Amino acid sequence: MENDCIKVFAPATVANVACGFDVIGLAMEAPGDEFIMRRSSKPGVTITKVHGANLSTDPAQNVCGVAIQALLQKLGNPDAGIELELFKNITPGSGIGSSAASSAGAVVGANHLLGEPFTRKQLVRFAMEGERLASGAAHADNVAPAILGGFTLVRSYKPLDITSLHTPGELWVTVIHPQIEVKTSDAREILKQKVLMTDAIRQWGNVGALVAGLYQENYELISRALEDVIVEPVRAILIPAFYELKVKCKEAGALGGGISGSGPSVFMLSKGEANARNVAEMMNTVYAPLGVDYKIHVSKINTEGVKISKV
Amino acid sequence: MENDCIKVFAPATVANVACGFDVIGLAMEAPGDEFIMRRSSKPGVTITKVHGANLSTDPAQNVCGVAIQALLQKLGNPDAGIELELFKNITPGSGIGSSAASSAGAVVGANHLLGEPFTRKQLVRFAMEGERLASGAAHADNVAPAILGGFTLVRSYKPLDITSLHTPGELWVTVIHPQIEVKTSDAREILKQKVLMTDAIRQWGNVGALVAGLYQENYELISRALEDVIVEPVRAILIPAFYELKVKCKEAGALGGGISGSGPSVFMLSKGEANARNVAEMMNTVYAPLGVDYKIHVSKINTEGVKISKV
Repeated sequence: MENDCIKVFAPATVANVACGFDVIGLAMEAPGDEFIMRRSSKPGVTITKVHGANLSTDPAQNVCGVAIQALLQKLGNPDAGIELELFKNITPGSGIGSSAASSAGAVVGANHLLGEPFTRKQLVRFAMEGERLASGAAHADNVAPAILGGFTLVRSYKPLDITSLHTPGELWVTVIHPQIEVKTSDAREILKQKVLMTDAIRQWGNVGALVAGLYQENYELISRALEDVIVEPVRAILIPAFYELKVKCKEAGALGGGISGSGPSVFMLSKGEANARNVAEMMNTVYAPLGVDYKIHVSKINTEGVKISKV
Repeated sequence: MENDCIKVFAPATVANVACGFDVIGLAMEAPGDEFIMRRSSKPGVTITKVHGANLSTDPAQNVCGVAIQALLQKLGNPDAGIELELFKNITPGSGIGSSAASSAGAVVGANHLLGEPFTRKQLVRFAMEGERLASGAAHADNVAPAILGGFTLVRSYKPLDITSLHTPGELWVTVIHPQIEVKTSDAREILKQKVLMTDAIRQWGNVGALVAGLYQENYELISRALEDVIVEPVRAILIPAFYELKVKCKEAGALGGGISGSGPSVFMLSKGEANARNVAEMMNTVYAPLGVDYKIHVSKINTEGVKISKV
């Protein structure tokens, strides 16, 4: 058992899917963080190495360590030994759930090595402890889709109430990550504490329609519902050429999109791979002249969540 | 053709389904307004009689007349003749879509007599003109479920965007109508123009979960999502013993509920007829000592909308 070694893939995710601010997220096929994990005779979590980012290997200072430790505590077996090596492929601060992928992969991998004592849904709570370390708040809107796959909805935190939504088969996502820094705390601070009732009603009409559109596999309804009248108008200023990008991506075939998480990444949903790739090209066309470095990702919606394979 | 006569049944509806304020409505099997309708050689709308309520038979002052006239105008045939006799079974001002049922029945009936030139969805717009006469605003949240049946969601008015939601097979509704007057205009006026962002997020999380619960036929999720943190706390004061009623109905087996439309009716959803009838009994127990007259209705969700039969 101790030498059995697994490979774990934990996907990037988009939180704050347009109207679904703070509640709706989705998982991507790529990019994703990767782990080599095994049981260890050394009690607790051992992080042997982090590749690709300058992150602590102290398990108390690393989201993987904190998330797995929360799992071990709940299991009543804090001295079980888990060893991991992390290949950090998702750039921290990109707005596509970098810390969430690490937390999610860590707990799903550990749970597998321990004989699956918890369901995937139960694992969300442990991964949220990683999010607490990363951002000061135990958000679920990235870790839920990372663990469960597809689209997820966080109805409430007290009590924690998460449900998986249906994912239409031809739905793809294109993400552009401008390499600028947007601090989540800053992005939160510029939000208003109160919103107009008329805007709030429009927003929840859109949320209802987006969920209905996913279940109906009605891409036109999804397109119309991908509207955020509350957060996007405030945060768009943080992202270079946001509105130009959005308008041109829709012209290029996107159903719609918005700011991914608290930015700086921007996501666009499309029906089918061809549209998603056209959108990527358009993103390139808009961003190439700006003098800002960027990465573009094209991915089908990942309906599995974290994936485990033998090494 | 002129003597062909139809009978029309147009159902009561519940708008403002908990978290779905202004966007989610549902149709009942009973009560409902009834019509006898036929083609007439006299151009325009003729209302021969209104039974059961003191409403004008002048087609320009009656929601049925106004709604059918809007249909005839759009058809480009304003001189087609439609004659109707209305049996008003839904008490005006009850908060279960009394004017909406009349408008809905009128246009579905007229459309049938004219050879179905419009789809049911297209008819919603004409029935909204009846609502404009009744309340000063062309709401769709009662006429949409009355015409289409089941649960409906009004995503937006500009442009008008209405979608039917899936209705779980065992869903029932129990409604109590306390015979007190709540003016829609008063009920609107006490609402706040701004709401807390945290409340708005909770509300749209619930809206997303309610829609997901309907599609999943997940009665527990529906139950948890039937929460309104924005409008109900303001309007509950208009309805005698509202909170006691709600708590006790849930104890009696209701999934949850809230104020129907802008009141004074209160609705509760239940899984199965037995629960819905227990809830009715509990409503009776709570209201009997209050010295307020009331009516109670128990109904399966009506998934057909307006029904037409031969006389």
